[in-house]
Amino acid sequence: MSEPTSKVTLADVARLAGVGVGTASRALSGSARVAPGTRARVLEVADRLQYVVSPDAAGLARGRTGRVALVVPHLSRWFFGEVSEGIHAGLRGADLDLLLYPVGAVRERVEFFERLPARRKVDAVIVVAFPVREAEQRRLELMGVHIVAAGGQSASYPFVRIDDYSSGRQAMDHLLFLGHRRIAMLEARDPDQPDLKPPRSDAYHAALAENGIDPDPELVVVGDWGGEQGAQGMSRLLSLRHPPTAVYAHSDEVALGAVRTIRRAGLTVPGDISVVGIDDHPLAALTDLTTVRQPAYEQGVRAAELLVGLLREQPDVDTTVTLPTELVVRASTAPPRR
Amino acid sequence: MSEPTSKVTLADVARLAGVGVGTASRALSGSARVAPGTRARVLEVADRLQYVVSPDAAGLARGRTGRVALVVPHLSRWFFGEVSEGIHAGLRGADLDLLLYPVGAVRERVEFFERLPARRKVDAVIVVAFPVREAEQRRLELMGVHIVAAGGQSASYPFVRIDDYSSGRQAMDHLLFLGHRRIAMLEARDPDQPDLKPPRSDAYHAALAENGIDPDPELVVVGDWGGEQGAQGMSRLLSLRHPPTAVYAHSDEVALGAVRTIRRAGLTVPGDISVVGIDDHPLAALTDLTTVRQPAYEQGVRAAELLVGLLREQPDVDTTVTLPTELVVRASTAPPRR
Repeated sequence: MSEPTSKVTLADVARLAGVGVGTASRALSGSARVAPGTRARVLEVADRLQYVVSPDAAGLARGRTGRVALVVPHLSRWFFGEVSEGIHAGLRGADLDLLLYPVGAVRERVEFFERLPARRKVDAVIVVAFPVREAEQRRLELMGVHIVAAGGQSASYPFVRIDDYSSGRQAMDHLLFLGHRRIAMLEARDPDQPDLKPPRSDAYHAALAENGIDPDPELVVVGDWGGEQGAQGMSRLLSLRHPPTAVYAHSDEVALGAVRTIRRAGLTVPGDISVVGIDDHPLAALTDLTTVRQPAYEQGVRAAELLVGLLREQPDVDTTVTLPTELVVRASTAPPRR
Repeated sequence: MSEPTSKVTLADVARLAGVGVGTASRALSGSARVAPGTRARVLEVADRLQYVVSPDAAGLARGRTGRVALVVPHLSRWFFGEVSEGIHAGLRGADLDLLLYPVGAVRERVEFFERLPARRKVDAVIVVAFPVREAEQRRLELMGVHIVAAGGQSASYPFVRIDDYSSGRQAMDHLLFLGHRRIAMLEARDPDQPDLKPPRSDAYHAALAENGIDPDPELVVVGDWGGEQGAQGMSRLLSLRHPPTAVYAHSDEVALGAVRTIRRAGLTVPGDISVVGIDDHPLAALTDLTTVRQPAYEQGVRAAELLVGLLREQPDVDTTVTLPTELVVRASTAPPRR
């Protein structure tokens, strides 16, 4: 994707769209006083030219739309819904409206950031747990639009998150304390960035190393965040000559998939194999799953508060917030069989 | 709550707020060119007087904001998130933005409808699976704002839903076919309207009656939609002199709570007790739960399409859409022990 070229003017957009500058401006600012067909044409031209709305040129100054974009993949998954509810709660009282942009597919995320500059509808963007590329971030900055990550792992912009390494260590240290030494990991990777080594995986390797356990590459299965992936990964682990006595899964959904496979094989959890997840998904309590609790709602609230601080240009806004996690022991982990 | 009085004029609002009519109009239409303090004062007065913005008076005509309000309780629960994603998908291409209003508490719902008339920010409202009172509905109509229910059970305005009675019959008929006669029901009621007899409960009673089974009031436990409620309800059922051989739960989350209680009691599912839910929550597959699948995403898509049809004033828009459900047999149901 090419960088936005600041040389493109509003007049260029208007000319190519075959409308006056005033109409082009109104179309770009989302004014209702433009016919849908005309607006579509202007937006299309602006997109094509990668036109960046100058806050001055379009009569838009920072903090003036009263709206925040909530950009969230997988709204139907607990974590994302919970963070989104927290964000709404955190914005209450600030008289800001939330424009919702579910962007499940990577294509949709790219599209969101490509179209945003031509449609300056928001004062800020909150992204829930997915990475924003540097080029996209710069575009937002050019427009005077703030960006905050809620639940982001690593960001060069303000964020609220948990310490993923630490959460992984809590899970691993629990299994090691129980006496497990043959521990498998169901590693979840973001399909968008499969090359990024997750901190939750670093925790696995560091914990093994500190306990003098040689890592066995066969015990690490990489998938994505879905429960079905956890079920398949567990099948692979059960096909090994020496299956693990415990499984550390990167999320509760992955862990629950693993539990299903273990049960289908006629084995018991934790009698034969212990399983621990990360999240404390509400269904973890319902399925008696041991897990590491992360405060999802709270991450949303704090991200929203952080954003309000930035919009109000408050001094001393803490832009790197890391919230603690904690181990929740339930009935899916136990010492290994003798 | 009193009805909106159409006698209140914009001039009344302006006078009581101590501003000019122009400022009051801009404040009510959500214009950014009004100081936050002034806007708050105008909104407060308008709320107090129950002022209804006339589309003409405020220069707002139907379909002119380009925005739709998505009013959704419990965004973090799968069903609501899934329907919301479907709504977004259904609006794509219509160039409409979604303003998100999570309204978990009843108080928030009331507040939403009380504040909306004074802040005409949307052309339409989509409510996800909660009932809107008639007075509130009339207020929306007065403003020229459409309302559509996605996942509503019974509404006097356009809706997309499943047939709740039929879904309950699919679950019950399955248990009866397997040979169960002592069947319990974990009934979920909306805390907002505890007196409303759910169609899913009618299905239970009708199925028993048709099979010549006398209903045992002890076998019906009423709770809400949460998994913990299902777990508690199941405890009550296990305390009976003659516990059931099968349990029909109004949702998968309730069903999973029941499964946990059964397992904690040292019993097996379905060996000792069969359990069936409704939804086909993604974790139902992960936990091998037999259930009745309802198309959540699809309900959102169809509701959005219905809404677009109304906004475009298309003739022949089908405003009462009922989508089919289907039984999904997994490993939580079996014939009763001899």
